[in-house]
Amino acid sequence: MATGTLILMRHGESTWNESNQFTGWVDVALTDKGRAEAKRAGELLVEHDLLPDVLYTSLLRRAISTAQIALDAADRHWIPVTRDWRLNERHYGALQGLDKAATKEKYGDEQFMLWRRSYDTPPPPIEKDAEYSQSDDPRYADLAEVPLTECLKDVVARMIPYFTETIAADLRAGKTVLVAAHGNSLRALVKYLEDISDADIAGLNIPTGNPLRYDLDEDLKPVRKGEYLDPEAAAAGAAAVAAQGSAAGAAPKSQ
Amino acid sequence: MATGTLILMRHGESTWNESNQFTGWVDVALTDKGRAEAKRAGELLVEHDLLPDVLYTSLLRRAISTAQIALDAADRHWIPVTRDWRLNERHYGALQGLDKAATKEKYGDEQFMLWRRSYDTPPPPIEKDAEYSQSDDPRYADLAEVPLTECLKDVVARMIPYFTETIAADLRAGKTVLVAAHGNSLRALVKYLEDISDADIAGLNIPTGNPLRYDLDEDLKPVRKGEYLDPEAAAAGAAAVAAQGSAAGAAPKSQ
Repeated sequence: MATGTLILMRHGESTWNESNQFTGWVDVALTDKGRAEAKRAGELLVEHDLLPDVLYTSLLRRAISTAQIALDAADRHWIPVTRDWRLNERHYGALQGLDKAATKEKYGDEQFMLWRRSYDTPPPPIEKDAEYSQSDDPRYADLAEVPLTECLKDVVARMIPYFTETIAADLRAGKTVLVAAHGNSLRALVKYLEDISDADIAGLNIPTGNPLRYDLDEDLKPVRKGEYLDPEAAAAGAAAVAAQGSAAGAAPKSQ
Repeated sequence: MATGTLILMRHGESTWNESNQFTGWVDVALTDKGRAEAKRAGELLVEHDLLPDVLYTSLLRRAISTAQIALDAADRHWIPVTRDWRLNERHYGALQGLDKAATKEKYGDEQFMLWRRSYDTPPPPIEKDAEYSQSDDPRYADLAEVPLTECLKDVVARMIPYFTETIAADLRAGKTVLVAAHGNSLRALVKYLEDISDADIAGLNIPTGNPLRYDLDEDLKPVRKGEYLDPEAAAAGAAAVAAQGSAAGAAPKSQ
């Protein structure tokens, strides 16, 4: 028997998606295209009669703005919201700010894909006083230690406890929960929900601005595979994300 | 000794401010001018080194959007937010949606000013199934009874307990609290903070999009009068609000 409904939404295109730079915890804004994607996501929620009761976002502007625009389009701008750093994108370490194509060129395909898609190999740590470090960012003042780099395993280690201890309470209460977050924090959550192995998660890409729906049972297990509200755009979007790194990038498992 | 800092911010110009219609709980959007006012408000927060730690908003889009735009401009878009109907604008009853000038023409100056500025005379109640009623609005589903009209005294009765029981906890903890709300919910709060009489509150108008600062002692009493971050714009804005109803509208007491 289904209890809550979980809607995962990766932010719309950001300025650094557009310029093809590693972003991580750097707090870049949406592009016009990203804002249009967010509005379309809100319209999809209405078309599917899938109106969120509560919202969770990361502390990063591109996810916060995407949720605001989508919820405003769905006339749900007034629902309760909780923001938490545990939903943040993976910290990309010393790669933050670098051009993806130039990095691939410099380090080669294998190293590039290891940093982007290996489960447990983080990029080199960023210097605390580097331009794109978050060590002095006031929004992380309560953290015992601000990350200097993260692999996907590190994201799983912060994201999944937050899901099972905090977000889960709203789902068990039967609510429709919108999680507005990032490519890698959502990959961590989909890995958990669909029980995807450490190896296979490399092939999963999440497209921007396309709500992904899960109906969960009382053990918080999906009663069926995740469903994108716009399946065609999801397939095209995931292929585009995969193409940034490798021609071998698989279509999303959730399709 | 000061503890917390309270920043009151009335939303920027809305489409119905512009068209001169009674708004109340009708959920209209900001105009371009309103969005510019919100951005300017955020810049004023930065210029005065007055960065909010937490945000409270009403459930209405014009206050929610104003806060989002201002906080984004101040790079504080990531702070915790709580939304509550008790911060909503006064419910304007059967006047909601009506043209202000036509209403004044039809009912005369005295009745018009009684509805707008008397402390305890509400406008006639709106019909539950009227176009601009909120009786079936899902955001108020948890209320025992959705208001059909309110006078300022009714707003005081919902706003002040929310302030003393909920917002006050953040102030006592020494936080800088931003309250993004409405002309009349903020008048209710200023009445309480500055101990303004039921008669004198009629003369107080709050301009749009101009943060009003209070430093509070441990009894939540202001250590000095409220200060607008842009005093010149506040004086001009309050005069404009007053001019909608009467040439006798006083300058804000908080100046």
